[in-house]
Amino acid sequence: MQRREVKIVGTGKYLPAVRVTAQEMDRRLGVPDGWVLKKSDVAVRYFAGTEKASEMGARAAEAALCSAGLTFTDIDCLVCASGTMEQPIPCTAALIQKAMGQGRSGVPALDINTTCLSFVAALDMVSYMVAAGRYRRVLIVSSEIASKGLNWHQKESTALFGDGAAAVVMERVSAGESSCILQAAMETYGDGAAFSEIRGGGSALPASLYEPSEEEHYAFDMNGAGIFRMASQLLPSFLDRLLAAANMSIGDFKLVIPHQGSAMAMRLLSRKLKISDEQLMYITPDHGNTIAASIPMGLHEAVKQGRIERGDSVLLLGTSAGLSLGGLAFVY
Amino acid sequence: MQRREVKIVGTGKYLPAVRVTAQEMDRRLGVPDGWVLKKSDVAVRYFAGTEKASEMGARAAEAALCSAGLTFTDIDCLVCASGTMEQPIPCTAALIQKAMGQGRSGVPALDINTTCLSFVAALDMVSYMVAAGRYRRVLIVSSEIASKGLNWHQKESTALFGDGAAAVVMERVSAGESSCILQAAMETYGDGAAFSEIRGGGSALPASLYEPSEEEHYAFDMNGAGIFRMASQLLPSFLDRLLAAANMSIGDFKLVIPHQGSAMAMRLLSRKLKISDEQLMYITPDHGNTIAASIPMGLHEAVKQGRIERGDSVLLLGTSAGLSLGGLAFVY
Repeated sequence: MQRREVKIVGTGKYLPAVRVTAQEMDRRLGVPDGWVLKKSDVAVRYFAGTEKASEMGARAAEAALCSAGLTFTDIDCLVCASGTMEQPIPCTAALIQKAMGQGRSGVPALDINTTCLSFVAALDMVSYMVAAGRYRRVLIVSSEIASKGLNWHQKESTALFGDGAAAVVMERVSAGESSCILQAAMETYGDGAAFSEIRGGGSALPASLYEPSEEEHYAFDMNGAGIFRMASQLLPSFLDRLLAAANMSIGDFKLVIPHQGSAMAMRLLSRKLKISDEQLMYITPDHGNTIAASIPMGLHEAVKQGRIERGDSVLLLGTSAGLSLGGLAFVY
Repeated sequence: MQRREVKIVGTGKYLPAVRVTAQEMDRRLGVPDGWVLKKSDVAVRYFAGTEKASEMGARAAEAALCSAGLTFTDIDCLVCASGTMEQPIPCTAALIQKAMGQGRSGVPALDINTTCLSFVAALDMVSYMVAAGRYRRVLIVSSEIASKGLNWHQKESTALFGDGAAAVVMERVSAGESSCILQAAMETYGDGAAFSEIRGGGSALPASLYEPSEEEHYAFDMNGAGIFRMASQLLPSFLDRLLAAANMSIGDFKLVIPHQGSAMAMRLLSRKLKISDEQLMYITPDHGNTIAASIPMGLHEAVKQGRIERGDSVLLLGTSAGLSLGGLAFVY
């Protein structure tokens, strides 16, 4: 057990302005009516228009602070946990700080990135700092604009994504509270790195070499079947090890909040992992896959909808580009 | 005090193949002979040719493991702490794991980014996990290819940079050892975000919108005077607070390893901070500014050259895009 005496005291969410229905996506992708809904189960998603990721993240962070009855002065550190960045330099966390009007605060701001599992990894890492008393309270923000990097020729993957932001505030528990992180684990298998990638835009293939004829190198390239094969092979034993280390079984969790990668994969994997329908937090139909924001959005909705209460055990679980697997068991 | 019982047990460095002298840079920049050396004090720097950042990072990581008498099987987590990324998805750490031939290892891999201070931030965060026993040993790798993102019209900033990688292995101390992290701090002032940035290539200005006429948006844009003004205003009181919290004075450090941002700024700030020439680790002349790799490279050289020994107090210090300030005091 790696129990950490921390709790999530506030959550917030922000969806950008452009509401895109499944029907509208059918038209944009040039597919028959009903194709997107059938393939993705995403009835509605949101795309950023002129909004920047830092602005979306700032709004979600403010909502999380508000829900906790706190203000920015209560925060000692701001972590951006996103799979996409607003600009290559500086880190998105510094831009979120600025977008919150806190650019003179001095509050440390840094990014943690492991694509879709960035939030889980950040929650895990930061909890050690909060438990040790280094920071009283940390704001963790995931803000994702997937829509600018999609490959519209890869219809099946493009059908999955939406934009959005979510944030949480973490603090150390007070005496007598049951909230804590029970156990967390992450595993990365770099041999699966090419299953989901954007090859262009970094140092390997700089943006300055962009040619319209090579646009597919600068857009998201996903081998859904490859990911699913690797994930379904690795995830059951990964979860077994995580549960064994926590001395728990899957039935002990009031709620499982998975990364909303793809509805179909989630359903198949849930069955394999013996997660019941009642346990599964499923927000895909009105959000899509919002990359790293997907898990904290699920958490926010779970709190808001009253699906979890203080003292309930919750499991965050997912896979990400890398290929990585991640899980975190906590008492809300 | 936030003492953490961890130590650095191995360091490694890798410089890419293309050796570029100050004279060669004079020619590339179209400036008079001697201009680059006079402006930057960089006599020689290295640029990546066909090497990828992950390959450079893998070589530095292998060197760090070798110097510690360890192999990859001794490692529980791999953190890439770089300001530049190899490709937008997945994180560079997963690509380094793969480049080390460890793509089936399952060792968790994630990126921590706060531009030039990424290594200091990663060392700081990861130390809490190592001290708590979550991971036995963590490999922290900074691998930077600055050369692909330079703006050759901004001669003064372009004159500063070089490519390269450095890595360390961190583990928990054994009983009776004096090694530890004494104190660390970071502050971010987002109002200074525009002083050093690459605006294009992320979600705000995607690579797919690249036009040769707008190339300057996709290259590094640095306002050296702005950074220096902000840094010289903020750094003295930042360091005072860090030292006060550690109950130390600057004279207590055997060595100060600063980010090798710019020779001129480093000299002026060192004087202001009362860091003596003997205390200052200065590797700019044969490396240039290698972004986040600059501090771990300085640390590697300090160990290799015998400038620090076990039990010596060392201070890592720097500023980064954000604008952030960071410092970490440790006993080697």
